[in-house]
This record gives sequence, structure tokens and C-alpha cells, in this order.
Amino acid sequence: MDIIKECVTALQEVKEKSPLVHNITNYVTVNDCANIIAAIGGSPIMADEINEVEDMVSIASCLVINMGTLNERTVASMIKAGKKANELGVPVVFDPVGVGAGPYRNRIAEILLNEIRFAVIRGNMSEIKFLSGLAVQTKGVDSVADEAGAVEAAMGFAAKMKCVAAVTGKTDIITDGKRVCLIDNGHPILTGVSGTGCMTSALVGTFCGAVQDYFLAASAGVLSMGLSGELAQRTLKGKEGIGTFRMRLFDSIYSLDGETITKEGRMKVE
Amino acid sequence: MDIIKECVTALQEVKEKSPLVHNITNYVTVNDCANIIAAIGGSPIMADEINEVEDMVSIASCLVINMGTLNERTVASMIKAGKKANELGVPVVFDPVGVGAGPYRNRIAEILLNEIRFAVIRGNMSEIKFLSGLAVQTKGVDSVADEAGAVEAAMGFAAKMKCVAAVTGKTDIITDGKRVCLIDNGHPILTGVSGTGCMTSALVGTFCGAVQDYFLAASAGVLSMGLSGELAQRTLKGKEGIGTFRMRLFDSIYSLDGETITKEGRMKVE
Amino acid sequence: MDIIKECVTALQEVKEKSPLVHNITNYVTVNDCANIIAAIGGSPIMADEINEVEDMVSIASCLVINMGTLNERTVASMIKAGKKANELGVPVVFDPVGVGAGPYRNRIAEILLNEIRFAVIRGNMSEIKFLSGLAVQTKGVDSVADEAGAVEAAMGFAAKMKCVAAVTGKTDIITDGKRVCLIDNGHPILTGVSGTGCMTSALVGTFCGAVQDYFLAASAGVLSMGLSGELAQRTLKGKEGIGTFRMRLFDSIYSLDGETITKEGRMKVE
Repeated sequence: MDIIKECVTALQEVKEKSPLVHNITNYVTVNDCANIIAAIGGSPIMADEINEVEDMVSIASCLVINMGTLNERTVASMIKAGKKANELGVPVVFDPVGVGAGPYRNRIAEILLNEIRFAVIRGNMSEIKFLSGLAVQTKGVDSVADEAGAVEAAMGFAAKMKCVAAVTGKTDIITDGKRVCLIDNGHPILTGVSGTGCMTSALVGTFCGAVQDYFLAASAGVLSMGLSGELAQRTLKGKEGIGTFRMRLFDSIYSLDGETITKEGRMKVE
Repeated sequence: MDIIKECVTALQEVKEKSPLVHNITNYVTVNDCANIIAAIGGSPIMADEINEVEDMVSIASCLVINMGTLNERTVASMIKAGKKANELGVPVVFDPVGVGAGPYRNRIAEILLNEIRFAVIRGNMSEIKFLSGLAVQTKGVDSVADEAGAVEAAMGFAAKMKCVAAVTGKTDIITDGKRVCLIDNGHPILTGVSGTGCMTSALVGTFCGAVQDYFLAASAGVLSMGLSGELAQRTLKGKEGIGTFRMRLFDSIYSLDGETITKEGRMKVE
Repeated sequence: MDIIKECVTALQEVKEKSPLVHNITNYVTVNDCANIIAAIGGSPIMADEINEVEDMVSIASCLVINMGTLNERTVASMIKAGKKANELGVPVVFDPVGVGAGPYRNRIAEILLNEIRFAVIRGNMSEIKFLSGLAVQTKGVDSVADEAGAVEAAMGFAAKMKCVAAVTGKTDIITDGKRVCLIDNGHPILTGVSGTGCMTSALVGTFCGAVQDYFLAASAGVLSMGLSGELAQRTLKGKEGIGTFRMRLFDSIYSLDGETITKEGRMKVE
């Protein structure tokens, strides 16, 4: 699999199809998520009222569930929308924001994992580790100090959950339990901006709405954010900081093309 | 009616009166709406709790109802606030975001149209067409392929609803059923940013809070967004894209003045 | 007390500790608050679901309660979180956004003041005046035309409420009832951006999460916003306006350091 070439094609598919991506998400980064989906070429829908989420899922090419600022009202909408998506064969992406931070959040994550089949679960290593513990009902992969351990943990989680796991970090790990994609793009400044994780999940959802292979979609989504972040960071001069970086991040996603991916993408599939 | 001149005066009125504009809106673009109102010279209030919306309407010069991410809680607040505004003679602007996308949303739009008298309804052609269907209980204006048809459809809708219809698109159409204002400012990049429609409605609301003639107010609001978008787009260089554009859009609204409107406004009243 | 020097040290503490700041806030400026906390070096949590706010408070170094777009659901969360914070000794910052604008909002403010002990209350003079009236059950400080009167009013309020009062305006006044810090940084353009008040409270919360003396924390937080706003405004050229300003404000907060505070801070303690 020539992953770079596949990502280039996937991006073209996004631009051509402009997939409708339905998000049930948090109120902190919802605007960023809508704009990043639009910037890469998709069409965002952000509806979360329980009486209409099934209708929205029915016209969407992907559903993204983000539990950042979950509450009783939106959790009910997430479950209803997720089940409908499963019924219709619409892929569902899950961003388990902050799982592990407290019992309520952990319980909701468990419910969502039980009730909904996810195409992709995107989180950082501590979130994925926590979910692995939930999934296997043991402490499981609590120590993944090295990259080899991290890859193994992600693969085990993906295999058990029958989904693609996209674990973002210094090196991003995307795996469907068999194939593993490692991505070395990105820049530490991305962690200083609220919402870059959520936006990554939104991008993954956009690709899932355009291509059939969710392993590829997740890889392309994660690459897009890491690479665009890297390019945006490179433009910073003098006193330009996090504010300018955020703006340029949207510019970079907007102008991301096959040439840039081919030239700058640092990813491989094992 | 020298519409350009009237718009220049309307903008002065906004700057002088700094009208308090009460918005019950969606959680995706609420920040953009507050900032765009402030940028042009108004004062935003974004309260949506049912126990206080009547109080807020009572001190406001205009109410803007935007059903982007409507939910049961906020719909109840919209109805209560809208009725109070009608009682007090405070103009109400309606942005029927996404009407037509599903039965729940369509039903809420119908309820709002029945319960509240709107001064201005601002949407794109497909939204206005859908509402026309609701209003006339027939399929009505389902085909408005050409501009003449679009104008006629908008005029019919405005006359039936006894309001100003502001239909944004390649050429914007604003009509009170008798007068028609056509605006040719704008740029396609505006459609690539989440929230430009919502912000246009917020600007229309700001002008409605400052001038008595809502046909003029709607025209001035729509012109402000189109013209500022055009000016913002012109500044883009090299790899600057949607992120930079969004920032400059706020700059352009902030610095919009009579001279710019006079020089760059492409609008006429028929 | 060499307040400039103390603020420099306080900023270092923030950078070293990266305090977890839990916010229950409004949906208009929540993204700005999260990003400003991250920009200065803190870690934001924005959870507002009643079933998890106690868990979040338990891992946080500070709680910020902002009643911008309060509603029945979030008010219940505010009270529960505030009581837990008091129990655990976690400082609570209160931003009484828009108090005085209507009876519901006023009643909620009164309830919050009765139920929760605040470390810092941050508002503009009209909000603090209104709260003073609530607190003393008289019309109290309704006329504070001059700075001496304003300082006296703030001191009286702080003493009565046993908290730090941070009153932002042309000259900012921070007082614990005994000490008074006056800050002359800032720029009028800050009032033209939605959320600068909320962000100031979020910064105060970030400092409260890192230093023990809340009078110092409030002074450092208010200084950070005023000074960064001033520096951001200075960079504006030509047609750059409110959009560019907002972006640079985040840049300025991000790059704020001891040298800049020492050189540009205009503050004194009386």
C-alpha cells in the first residue's frame, strides 16, 4: 500500500464529493470543527437535538461523536444518532475526549462503546489506554512506555473493538488491528491550541465520508492535521504565536493538496 | 430611493445608536455573531434562558432568532421572546438555518412563522423556497431557475408573510413585496466559511435596531457582509486562505464606512 | 509589595505548574476562554454537566463561574461545583456577566453569592455596583463618579464579601478590602471585542490556580489582559482592525513574559 499516494487520492475524493459530516460535539470547539470540515472540502452539520439527529444522520456521509462537553441531553442524542448510523451503514467516528478524568465521563464512554459500532476511535494514548481497560475489563495496557508497546496496545484495542484506532501523539499510530500507519508530521505547538484533537477527529470523519477504507480515511485525516500544523508553524515570525498559528492552520488545511502531501508527508504503513 | 446613500446613513445610525441586539442562536457561530455585531457598532446580547429572554427583549432594539442548532429548550425561548418582541414593537429577524433538511426542523420553522411576526426573514434561496411552500401550503416556487423567477418568488413570499425577505446568493435579493433591492457584492469564498449566513442575519438585526425601514435595514445588512467579504478576499496573498479571510472579514466590517459603500457598493432598487 | 515583581513571579508559577482551570461558562466565549488559559500556560477544562462537575473540580486548581449565558441546567452545575470547590479549598472566581440587566439574572447572582464563597469576583464597575447593592441590601454605591469613589466602593464590596474584587475599566481596581492595586494598562479597543471580560476572568482563574495570594492572582490576571491588549493594538497597521487585533491578543498573551511586564506594566499597590 503506497499510503502517501492513497492519501492524495483520498483528498481528491473529499474535494469532489464534499461529504456531509454530521457532528454531535462539544460547545468549546464546535466552530473550529465546522470550519475545519469546510476548509478541507466537506460540508458540516452540527445538529444535536434528539428529535432531528436521525434525520440528519440519514442525509450524512459520516457521523462524528465527540464527548468533550457531554451532557445528559446530548448523550441521548449521540446514542440515538449512533444507532441510526449503524443501521444505515453510515460510518461513525468517536472522539472520547477526556475519558479517564472522572467516573461519569468514563461510564458514558462505556455506554457509547456498548451501544454503537464505531468505524474509527480517535484519541490520545491515555484516552485509548483507558478505553482499552474498559473494553477488556482489566487494567490491560496501562504501561506503554515505548513506541513498540504503544503500537501493540493500539493494535490490540482495534482488533478487540473491530474498528480503526487512531492514536495521536508525537508519532501518530493508526491501525485496524492488522495494518499500522505511523505518521511523523506535526508540531508540539498543536497541543497548545484548544480543539486540535477535536478538529483531527472532524477531519477523520470527513475522509470517512468520502472513502470506503476507514484505515486510510483515519490516516489521511490525522496526516492532514499534523502536516498542516507543521506548515502553519513554519510560517511564524517574530512575535507571532498561538493566535497567528491558529489562523494559519486553517489556511494550511484549506490549501492542502496532493503535491504538499507527496512532498512533506512523513508516514509509512507496516 | 438612492439606496447607496440610504445605506450610508443607516451605517451612521448604527454607529451613533449602538443598538442592543438580542440573539437566540446556535452554538456553532454564536461567537462570530456577537463579534460581528460589535464590529459594525452594535451591542450584542446572546441570552437564551426562557426565564430571562423577555427581560432581554424589553431592553433590546432588535431580536434575531436563528434556528441553526435549535433544541427543545431554545425553541421555547425563541417563541416566548418573539411574542414579547411583537408585543413591544421590537423588530424580529428570522434566520431559518437548514429548513428543509428534516421534518423536525421544518415543523419548528412552521411554528415560529405562525407564532411570531417577523420584520425580516433572511435565508438562501432553498430555505426561502421551502418556507414559501410552508406558507402557501403548496409546492409553490419549487423551480426558480432564473433571476426573474427568484425575484418573483421572493416578492410573493414577502407579500404573503408581510415581512421583508432577504435572499442571499450570487445576487442577493431583498424585497418587502413591493420594492426590490438587488446586490451584486460578495465573493464565493464567503460560502466556504461557517457562519457567514448567520452573521449576515446578525448584521441585518443590527441595522433593524437602528433604522425604521426594515427593507433598508435588510439591504444594508446584506450589503455590509457581501462588500466586506469582497474587500477581505482582495487582500489575500500567496498561501493565505480561509483562516486569514475570516480574520480580515472582521477587519473589513469594522472599518466599513460611507466612503467604501459609496465607492464599492453594487446595488440597485427596482 | 513590589507588585510588578510579584506578577513576574506569578507568571512563572503559571508556566511551571500549568494549573488545571475548571470553567463553567457561557457558550459565546467558551472557546476564547479555553484558548486564553492555554495561551498563558494553564490547562482548561470546560465541563458543565451536573453529574461530573464535582469530579472535575476535584482535580482542578481553580474553578471559574461565568454567568454569561446562564440557564437552569448550568446554574445547577455552578452551585454544585462551587460548593464542592469550597469544601475542597479550591479557589472560585466569579464573573457576574450582565448582572443588573434583568430580574432572573440578578436573582441567580444573589443565589450564587449566598451559596458559594468566592476568592475573586471580577466585573466592570456597573456589575460590581449592582452586586454591592445586593450584598448590602441598600442602593449603596450607586454613584461612583470619580476614581476615589470607585476605589472606596470596590474596597467596601471586597470587605463585605470577604473576597478580592477585581473591577476592570479605564483604570482597573483590584482590592481585598485592605490592599488596592491600580492598573493603567489596556486600550479601548478591548471593549470592542466580545469576550475580553470573560477572558480576563479566565486569566484571573489561571493565576489563582498557581499562586496562594488571590489579590496578587487577580492583579496579575487583569494586568495580563490589559497589557497584552495594549501590545496587540500597537501592532495594528492600515486597515487592520478588530479581527487582526483578536488574533494578536492571543499572540501577546502567549508571548507575555517577565521582561515585558517589568518594562510595560503600569500598576501600583496602595
